[in-house]
Amino acid sequence: MEIFQVEAPLVCTRRVDGLQQIGLRVLRDVNGKRSVAVDTIGARDGNWVFTVNGSAARYAAGNYDILTDLTIGGIIDYWDDESGAA
Amino acid sequence: MEIFQVEAPLVCTRRVDGLQQIGLRVLRDVNGKRSVAVDTIGARDGNWVFTVNGSAARYAAGNYDILTDLTIGGIIDYWDDESGAA
Amino acid sequence: MEIFQVEAPLVCTRRVDGLQQIGLRVLRDVNGKRSVAVDTIGARDGNWVFTVNGSAARYAAGNYDILTDLTIGGIIDYWDDESGAA
Amino acid sequence: MEIFQVEAPLVCTRRVDGLQQIGLRVLRDVNGKRSVAVDTIGARDGNWVFTVNGSAARYAAGNYDILTDLTIGGIIDYWDDESGAA
Amino acid sequence: MEIFQVEAPLVCTRRVDGLQQIGLRVLRDVNGKRSVAVDTIGARDGNWVFTVNGSAARYAAGNYDILTDLTIGGIIDYWDDESGAA
Repeated sequence: MEIFQVEAPLVCTRRVDGLQQIGLRVLRDVNGKRSVAVDTIGARDGNWVFTVNGSAARYAAGNYDILTDLTIGGIIDYWDDESGAA
Repeated sequence: MEIFQVEAPLVCTRRVDGLQQIGLRVLRDVNGKRSVAVDTIGARDGNWVFTVNGSAARYAAGNYDILTDLTIGGIIDYWDDESGAA
Repeated sequence: MEIFQVEAPLVCTRRVDGLQQIGLRVLRDVNGKRSVAVDTIGARDGNWVFTVNGSAARYAAGNYDILTDLTIGGIIDYWDDESGAA
Repeated sequence: MEIFQVEAPLVCTRRVDGLQQIGLRVLRDVNGKRSVAVDTIGARDGNWVFTVNGSAARYAAGNYDILTDLTIGGIIDYWDDESGAA
Repeated sequence: MEIFQVEAPLVCTRRVDGLQQIGLRVLRDVNGKRSVAVDTIGARDGNWVFTVNGSAARYAAGNYDILTDLTIGGIIDYWDDESGAA
């Protein structure tokens, strides 16, 4: 599971049917690389989260029919590191 | 799910049977690295899209028999970033 | 299977149901990149471990319903390398 | 799906049973990194190809019992890029 | 499938049940990055091998219950490259 910081929601009206209307988030890793994830737990901008990838991401989305490969698994409360995460 | 910009279609007459005649696109990430994806939603050159990988890519292609590991999941409407995506 | 060194536990109260209350660990690879893994064997801070990823991670967690993509597979006793692992 | 250029065949007499006697190819990406793939469509040295990875690679090999994680999906006819592929 | 050179065996007495007592090897890629793989074909120190990852790694281990994500697929006999592999 990887660690990311949440950015703004992703606006995307044209999408494959398998993603339905589920909320998508742009995430950013410590090197600035961005990914897109399904969010079912209500992460907010600036939160540090970890993500679940692969087939587990579909189960984590709460609905195996959601065609995601990346889902937010949890919001990190704290994490002892000089470089981030409050 | 990863973020890419669409380049020209990929011309590829000799392919494994499992890819049938489905449309393929060359995508380019922010570092310039290219990948090939199935497109079922009609992305155009220059669009920013996000992709679904792994086994979900086959479901996202609308036909589990399509042997892809990367399918365009949606076209990004906008994305707040100084470096790209309109 | 990848090699990591264990850091402190991850504190994360808000998480997807599929992760239940299982123990999570922050790991760090030789380049300093951090990941989060399920730990069922009691690794301690500073231990060098290897991890199992993908669908095998769920089996390795001892419960296929645990929605992880990374689980600690073993604690490395020793490993002949000038750069680490005792 | 990733883009590679084909190098010489890989000679490998001792292999796991699951790979049978299928043809293997060394591929090289634009950064020079090498991978090994199953080839069922007869790619030749110097061809630019794209590959299918993950579980789809086994289907693409035409036989799910072939234990590959990378199979050549198609030979690229052309590809508009100043850096390569004819 | 990736290319690695074999280093010494990995000594690891505390491990998840799913890895049983199977032999594990430390491998090293051309950039020096280390991974851990199951070996069922008797690779020796210094051999160049290629590996099978993902769910195929469990089949390649000869027993789907072995919870590996990386298994040695074959020993490379030779490989035309100025940088290595005899």
